[in-house]
Amino acid sequence: MNILTPVQVGMIGMGVVGTGVARILVQHADRITRRAGRPIRLKRVAVRDTGRTRDVELPAGVISGDAADLIQDPEISIVVQLMGGVDLARQQILAALTHGKDIVTANKAVLAEHGTEIFDHALRLGRSVAYDAAVAGGIPIVSNIGQCLTANQITSLHGILNGTCNFIISKMEEDHSDYASAVAEAQRRGFAEADPRMDVDGSDAAQKLAILVQMAFDTQIGWRDIHRVGIDRLEPAELQLAKELGYRVRLIASASHGNNGLELQVAPRLVRIGSPLAEVRGAYNAISVNGDMVGTIFYHGLGAGQSPTASAVVADLIDTVVGRSAITFRTTGHWSDHEHSLPFADVAQTRSRFYWRITVQDDPGVLAQIAGALGQNGVSIATLIQRESVFDSVPGYTNLVLMTHESSEGAALAAETQLRQLAVVRKDTGIRLPVLN
Amino acid sequence: MNILTPVQVGMIGMGVVGTGVARILVQHADRITRRAGRPIRLKRVAVRDTGRTRDVELPAGVISGDAADLIQDPEISIVVQLMGGVDLARQQILAALTHGKDIVTANKAVLAEHGTEIFDHALRLGRSVAYDAAVAGGIPIVSNIGQCLTANQITSLHGILNGTCNFIISKMEEDHSDYASAVAEAQRRGFAEADPRMDVDGSDAAQKLAILVQMAFDTQIGWRDIHRVGIDRLEPAELQLAKELGYRVRLIASASHGNNGLELQVAPRLVRIGSPLAEVRGAYNAISVNGDMVGTIFYHGLGAGQSPTASAVVADLIDTVVGRSAITFRTTGHWSDHEHSLPFADVAQTRSRFYWRITVQDDPGVLAQIAGALGQNGVSIATLIQRESVFDSVPGYTNLVLMTHESSEGAALAAETQLRQLAVVRKDTGIRLPVLN
Repeated sequence: MNILTPVQVGMIGMGVVGTGVARILVQHADRITRRAGRPIRLKRVAVRDTGRTRDVELPAGVISGDAADLIQDPEISIVVQLMGGVDLARQQILAALTHGKDIVTANKAVLAEHGTEIFDHALRLGRSVAYDAAVAGGIPIVSNIGQCLTANQITSLHGILNGTCNFIISKMEEDHSDYASAVAEAQRRGFAEADPRMDVDGSDAAQKLAILVQMAFDTQIGWRDIHRVGIDRLEPAELQLAKELGYRVRLIASASHGNNGLELQVAPRLVRIGSPLAEVRGAYNAISVNGDMVGTIFYHGLGAGQSPTASAVVADLIDTVVGRSAITFRTTGHWSDHEHSLPFADVAQTRSRFYWRITVQDDPGVLAQIAGALGQNGVSIATLIQRESVFDSVPGYTNLVLMTHESSEGAALAAETQLRQLAVVRKDTGIRLPVLN
Repeated sequence: MNILTPVQVGMIGMGVVGTGVARILVQHADRITRRAGRPIRLKRVAVRDTGRTRDVELPAGVISGDAADLIQDPEISIVVQLMGGVDLARQQILAALTHGKDIVTANKAVLAEHGTEIFDHALRLGRSVAYDAAVAGGIPIVSNIGQCLTANQITSLHGILNGTCNFIISKMEEDHSDYASAVAEAQRRGFAEADPRMDVDGSDAAQKLAILVQMAFDTQIGWRDIHRVGIDRLEPAELQLAKELGYRVRLIASASHGNNGLELQVAPRLVRIGSPLAEVRGAYNAISVNGDMVGTIFYHGLGAGQSPTASAVVADLIDTVVGRSAITFRTTGHWSDHEHSLPFADVAQTRSRFYWRITVQDDPGVLAQIAGALGQNGVSIATLIQRESVFDSVPGYTNLVLMTHESSEGAALAAETQLRQLAVVRKDTGIRLPVLN
């Protein structure tokens, strides 16, 4: 097989994932050649800092500071785009497509932001874009939706798509530590960046969800249009109370085909202990997909890290070399003039049960006022626990912890607004989290 | 798109799965046309009993009693083989390949028995065989190993591949019912056949394991050469004792790349409560795959049933129409003259911890004899519980329940043989189960 002409590949970016990709291609060249039917040769790697020492040895002349060079190289047929960021990545991908290259990328941000433009450009030019590594690292969820579950109409998907948040929440849950120290621990262990905002505010999960939704529902949404609630307001109290009620809290990115259209959200939610998503710990990712034929399929694996993400990039590279990517890209609904677009549901219409903690004055008659405000908005209480102020104890205040029956987000929000105006409710405290059924 | 020429398909067999396939193709024709790029038309369906009423309406003339007819029809380009059994199925598949058809099949028995011959024949003729439905029903595990995890060397896989057994064991565990009544309940609910032997003795799981091993390890094994232990000797006592020790019992089909080669077995094993495989209930299937790059990926879903299995068949059909099957089939190690064959480990060399229940005379000095027999064979005890005879109570006897440290199956078997010769050990009782790490 080695007598076959190698496929020449250019790679942009050689951070953690790029190093992993180079390592597989160099150290497992025989295996990759066998699987791809011909050798895959890393001809050129464009990096920001050419002087840096690398963990994997590449032949002299491979490392270069110039991405434009490899994008224009007529010998290179596939460009692996692994550099983060949006604007430059977009330019590089569009230019590489224009120069006749197929694309493999792990850059979720650029796809969530400019996916339509990139996919249209590729389709017009008869090229392909493979991006399984952009969502859930090693879990091949993009390939599963695009290739394996094609007999189904996906009816819903629920995922833990951000390992940073899951690590932080697991940490708070297991060690009873507060949010700030859990974040610091995640940073110390390399699970959170110095500036973790895009992770903890739900943006990263929303970007990944936008990519999955495009495939699963043949539709398009800008990730900024996805309703999202971050984890930064979570307190250890919630995790402990949820546990007493039989739940864990997880940051769930979800899309489901409801009566009012496609319901999308990223939010910390209560998930019943023992259900698969509740048992996802640390930096793991997981996705539960519901198809009208297959029922529920659950996937669990490493959502980030060098080798798992490189596993996805190299699988895409092999798919591109053997020709599967071209087919999948062409047959999956990527085009912008799509006829089957679903309407998006207004988040106010999405229905669920709610966990609700309200800090109130410990006085007679208070409960009646709370129950009244909820009732006036059509929110009914399923379970109520009154707790002495063991958490954020303030003399004279107590915590009401309740689970509601199902109501709409809109009704719950109206009730919340009304509650906050009551003199007996302590301002800026309390939290409301939807429950995952 | 509907102006494109339809792909003409012939289907052999229209039982539960075939009816599901026909239903998707007929009732969701638009969706399938969109995903496949052209319409898929069920031109001919060969059945045993042409007079039977069907749950799905097909145009007149589609149902036929003659499979040879459809195999020879030059208009038909894909044959979906769903009839059970081995010999006739083998003949039909080989004949259809000879007549230039691609194959989609859910028949695990014929592939486990004659896979090499069928795959070689297909490769020689430039045709493809797609068989994701043959293993784990709706879980696309074959596609995942063959298409999504291609960057990896799979190092191990552990699966619950037989829903019948899992239903029976779950039932015994949850209702404390005995084996016979759990089987009867499974039969009543359609989860077990009238003659469930191939399921309960581990043969069905071994056939599926043989198929996965061929893909995952680029090697071949006859399913009869896989060491297998059935579930028919399980007693409710084991499930209860295992639970007290923090485990559940599951029928695990496993393949792992050990020091002595590829270790294969199908056996009821103790799986730690809270680990993903332990939490698989009822008729579900699950597979945990370990790859050297991706780490552990876990899949869970419906392993049988009309719609889940039809989901896999139709996905294979779409893959075949769009051309992915041809690529995957060609690039996956299916050929018989394979250079990368791994040696198979002798089961006597496989190492694990063991759960062991021994029924002994309740006399002084007995424990010393038991411990002596184990020690002489190099098996050392990690935990020991002596239980009054609450299970199969026989006056004068008691149960020793022990967990051993890791030892080889060979050493444990030698110890077991020696134990059975002791006068203090009750004959034909007791059980030894390997523990899954």
